[in-house]
Amino acid sequence: MPAFPALDRLLKPSSVALVGASANPRSLGGRTLANLRGFPGRLYLVNPNQAEIDGLPCHGLVSALPEPVDCVVLAIPSESVESVVRECAGARAGAVVVLASGYAETGTQQGEQAQQRLAHIAAEAGMRIVGPNCVGVASHVHGVHAAFAEFPKPHAGADRTVGLVSQSGAVALALSQAAERGVSFSHVLTCGNSCDVDVADYVAFLADESSCNAIALAFEGLRDPARLQPAIERARARAKPVAICRLGTSPAGREAVRFHTGTDPGPASLLEFVRGMPGVAVVDRVEALIDTAVFLAKAPPPNRAGVAVLSGSGGTGILSVDAAMRWGVATPQPGAATTARLAAAIPYFGSPRNPCDVTAQATRNPESLLACAEALLDDPAYGALVIPWGRSQSPALLPSIGALGAARGKPVCIVWMSQLLESGVTQQIEQNGTLTLFRSLDQCFAAISAWCHPLAAA
Amino acid sequence: MPAFPALDRLLKPSSVALVGASANPRSLGGRTLANLRGFPGRLYLVNPNQAEIDGLPCHGLVSALPEPVDCVVLAIPSESVESVVRECAGARAGAVVVLASGYAETGTQQGEQAQQRLAHIAAEAGMRIVGPNCVGVASHVHGVHAAFAEFPKPHAGADRTVGLVSQSGAVALALSQAAERGVSFSHVLTCGNSCDVDVADYVAFLADESSCNAIALAFEGLRDPARLQPAIERARARAKPVAICRLGTSPAGREAVRFHTGTDPGPASLLEFVRGMPGVAVVDRVEALIDTAVFLAKAPPPNRAGVAVLSGSGGTGILSVDAAMRWGVATPQPGAATTARLAAAIPYFGSPRNPCDVTAQATRNPESLLACAEALLDDPAYGALVIPWGRSQSPALLPSIGALGAARGKPVCIVWMSQLLESGVTQQIEQNGTLTLFRSLDQCFAAISAWCHPLAAA
Repeated sequence: MPAFPALDRLLKPSSVALVGASANPRSLGGRTLANLRGFPGRLYLVNPNQAEIDGLPCHGLVSALPEPVDCVVLAIPSESVESVVRECAGARAGAVVVLASGYAETGTQQGEQAQQRLAHIAAEAGMRIVGPNCVGVASHVHGVHAAFAEFPKPHAGADRTVGLVSQSGAVALALSQAAERGVSFSHVLTCGNSCDVDVADYVAFLADESSCNAIALAFEGLRDPARLQPAIERARARAKPVAICRLGTSPAGREAVRFHTGTDPGPASLLEFVRGMPGVAVVDRVEALIDTAVFLAKAPPPNRAGVAVLSGSGGTGILSVDAAMRWGVATPQPGAATTARLAAAIPYFGSPRNPCDVTAQATRNPESLLACAEALLDDPAYGALVIPWGRSQSPALLPSIGALGAARGKPVCIVWMSQLLESGVTQQIEQNGTLTLFRSLDQCFAAISAWCHPLAAA
Repeated sequence: MPAFPALDRLLKPSSVALVGASANPRSLGGRTLANLRGFPGRLYLVNPNQAEIDGLPCHGLVSALPEPVDCVVLAIPSESVESVVRECAGARAGAVVVLASGYAETGTQQGEQAQQRLAHIAAEAGMRIVGPNCVGVASHVHGVHAAFAEFPKPHAGADRTVGLVSQSGAVALALSQAAERGVSFSHVLTCGNSCDVDVADYVAFLADESSCNAIALAFEGLRDPARLQPAIERARARAKPVAICRLGTSPAGREAVRFHTGTDPGPASLLEFVRGMPGVAVVDRVEALIDTAVFLAKAPPPNRAGVAVLSGSGGTGILSVDAAMRWGVATPQPGAATTARLAAAIPYFGSPRNPCDVTAQATRNPESLLACAEALLDDPAYGALVIPWGRSQSPALLPSIGALGAARGKPVCIVWMSQLLESGVTQQIEQNGTLTLFRSLDQCFAAISAWCHPLAAA
């Protein structure tokens, strides 16, 4: 198993320097400065042409800073990068983050060699280097946002959090915007061309981070693809679930990886090792990555019982069991005692079965819906409950439903059936520590399948 | 080919009566009355216990109405339904809509027989009957909303519209809520237990409706499943695209159909006839139904050329071509002339290929992105353009991009990569007559596959 270097000076820094700090809020340096503003440690600006920016004094050189800085962000053009990296190495910086593009991803020998020189300088000095061609890193739990992309902050009081890892900054930014609908991220970590720090390092780091409840990995490539397995095994050893979406599954995609970050996507069989590995879910659609990671962050330890569907409509119940079958998730019928409890709680034209159709009438009746949820969760035939949810259903029931699941150690998945995708109700569900929100029945059952039937899903 | 009965009195009524009208806005009759308020024709209320409701006079009996009413909505308990249906038949009503539940869906002989008696009364009188156990129908183009569910109205000036057909009222309601994010529906038509009017009748009706540009069908079952094929062939003959999602594809789902509407889901092979049928798309996920129908409503006639991907990030480009491969959609490389045009428009560290990565830098540069879009749309290798779109990209470019596609008769699909799913930008894309918005790369390429490679997709 390769040693994964400590990333504490990069991701838990006491001091951060920004080289190329700018007063122009639209520039690379200005945007990065805005993101770094909330850093609770010592923040230094480096810009030889400015005395101060917004009240913060500017230093002329990294070597002129009053201490060996933990993390130096380079918001400067590629022409200047190498000399500043050298300067950082001399000043015993812990890590540098190189935002500039124009390296191995150009596919030119010149770009490749320039990148290798950066890696060499850092390696000689025992300094970590992130990038080049990356948007940076953010640790929301440590208050450091060393990136020019603005990753949205998690909501206050977040507890079931996801650490997001992606080479691609655009993919990380797009996925991290789930924070604005209530998903909590502990970290958003990108590495672009990955000349030193790569996604395997990030996964290994997050494996040890108690502030992170699950890891979401958009995997594109590594200099050494074989490093992925030990990183994921480390997460597994720490009981930290990992959801993975692989970029470059097609020949055209693998060719495009070469033009993107110049890394190696690894063989088609690269993820075979996770087959049958509990707590690791491979998703085939990038849109499913965050929902799946959130589910794994919130879910209790897996069980292999079946799944009950509780719906306010026959149609959504049918669609649910159809999706369950596509993902190999069993939806057995309830036992006789459960059936009796269901029948007592719903109208005669409903269905005291699985899927249990309480009808629109009972959906609006709190006692009725809760009685059915409790009956299904009490039945040992079921290890999880799925509820397709319409906008007309009463959101006041959601905390009670979550509590019923939590008390029995069984996850409850709410599938948002409305095509109006955002609302206060969806925010409320996202922020509930027990309920997981999905906007697709297939994504819900794919996640359940990965959780309770990893062999079938991997 | 079976004759499909005229549904004009039901769906283009000059007069509508509501039996069970109520002043209580939460009751079945009150909610239906609120929905019917905008009806531009003659609206009659029937309630023997009220003189008037909100200024509208109440009649005591259907037979006391001043004319044979085109469409009578029965918002009354099942116990009273049969006698009122008989009364409607005697008063030469055109159609009745029965909202009450408690018929064939109960699985009891009593319920089945009660339903058969309703169908028999209507058939004898040449009157159409919708339901029982349904939420009703809405024709937004004719201003009639004869339903207790509130289907959101389309935005003003809508032109590329979808007619939505579903037995299940809850599924219709959930899907119709796409109107609130800018999708335009011409009709939302449900039929519940379908004792007379069924989804095949609705498809055949919409086939002839010029106000409807594409049909979205959530198919559950029919009394006679063989009626589906001629209805869809009628739509095909009118060049009206149809997107279908089938409920009850699993054994558990098919069993649940019986407990829902008591109809016959038909054999597993029921939709085989659409294989290779241009203009008909079968979607496997209900969440994809509306996006696919909107794409078909907006798309020009299909071509079988490849698809170009234009991205502002390497990562989203890679994910796009991966999804294309999953759906059998070719993403060939551009010709030499196109490559030269692309290379001239993007930074040296971008990719003048397919996927074309203009980089985040060029994404914010209007001339650059439009030049690339135009170059790709000019290339005969491409019949469609897919653009993964981030929230930081400039929405001001969208109308120009749509115009480029429209001028060349090639569809442009915008794939919304943000996990914050709703915004003013998504509304703007939905309402553009040429651009189709998808929130999933796979749904986008599935729709393109169905459009240009129907053999592969069906």
